[in-house]
Amino acid sequence: MTHEELLVANALAFWNLAISRADKLFLNLTEKELDRAVAPGKNRLIYIWGHLAAVNDSLFSLMGIGQRLHPELDEVFITAPDRTAVNEISAADVKKAWTEINAKLRAEFAKMTPADWLHKHTAVSDADFVKEPLRNRMAILLTRTAHMAYHMGQAALIEKQ
Amino acid sequence: MTHEELLVANALAFWNLAISRADKLFLNLTEKELDRAVAPGKNRLIYIWGHLAAVNDSLFSLMGIGQRLHPELDEVFITAPDRTAVNEISAADVKKAWTEINAKLRAEFAKMTPADWLHKHTAVSDADFVKEPLRNRMAILLTRTAHMAYHMGQAALIEKQ
Repeated sequence: MTHEELLVANALAFWNLAISRADKLFLNLTEKELDRAVAPGKNRLIYIWGHLAAVNDSLFSLMGIGQRLHPELDEVFITAPDRTAVNEISAADVKKAWTEINAKLRAEFAKMTPADWLHKHTAVSDADFVKEPLRNRMAILLTRTAHMAYHMGQAALIEKQ
Repeated sequence: MTHEELLVANALAFWNLAISRADKLFLNLTEKELDRAVAPGKNRLIYIWGHLAAVNDSLFSLMGIGQRLHPELDEVFITAPDRTAVNEISAADVKKAWTEINAKLRAEFAKMTPADWLHKHTAVSDADFVKEPLRNRMAILLTRTAHMAYHMGQAALIEKQ
């Protein structure tokens, strides 16, 4: 592999590690366990899981690599704070969406060359991108991996029962 | 910049963003505020800050890019759980260590070429590295950036007063 291919492989391994850690936590919880808050008055695990699924799903449009799969997640897990959404989404549906979104992302990421990763993301204009070439898809991949870690740190505050 | 230089620049921007977010939180807190736990019975902010400083300091030896600056942090902020260390380290000393460590890391990182980032880290053998070339300094940079995000997610649970 070339240097640029290795650097991309590092970033993808980093993303995959975050996904596998989240899988390990969330896929093994019961609906009742998912209903627990990470601290008194804070988000429930189900909300964090749905939130991560929604943000990951937004990568398709933000990277310009396809149609997002589950826009219905945003209203419940991004726009509305936890426990305030008018319509709820079940744990089974969050699980299904999470799994589908990450599988499709993995498939799309696997096709991308280093040049593809350095392509601008869709929230920056052509003119701004000339001045700020790091506003690319790789920046999105890295920051959204950290976004998963941020919420996994919160989820880890729940004691094993 | 070449593709490999841009990919490294992305990773460094990602690291610097995490440092600046932590700076923004921790450097503005009083000693009393740093003494608050992120949730009942959980780590205090001062412990998280010292822990992040200790882990960042360990990058010098783990990457093989110099002597670490503050090995005394480990006993208090890694080996000992919060509130159990025999000797305490003051908030002023954590602040000094944090600032020095990150400034030296920044200076060392700035000298590194893409090939330097793809060099093996010191916790992997030559034989294993041949089979697993992603066990390099870049992997350390990315996972330790996520480590900061993980604990920043916990720190964010504290309400503004």
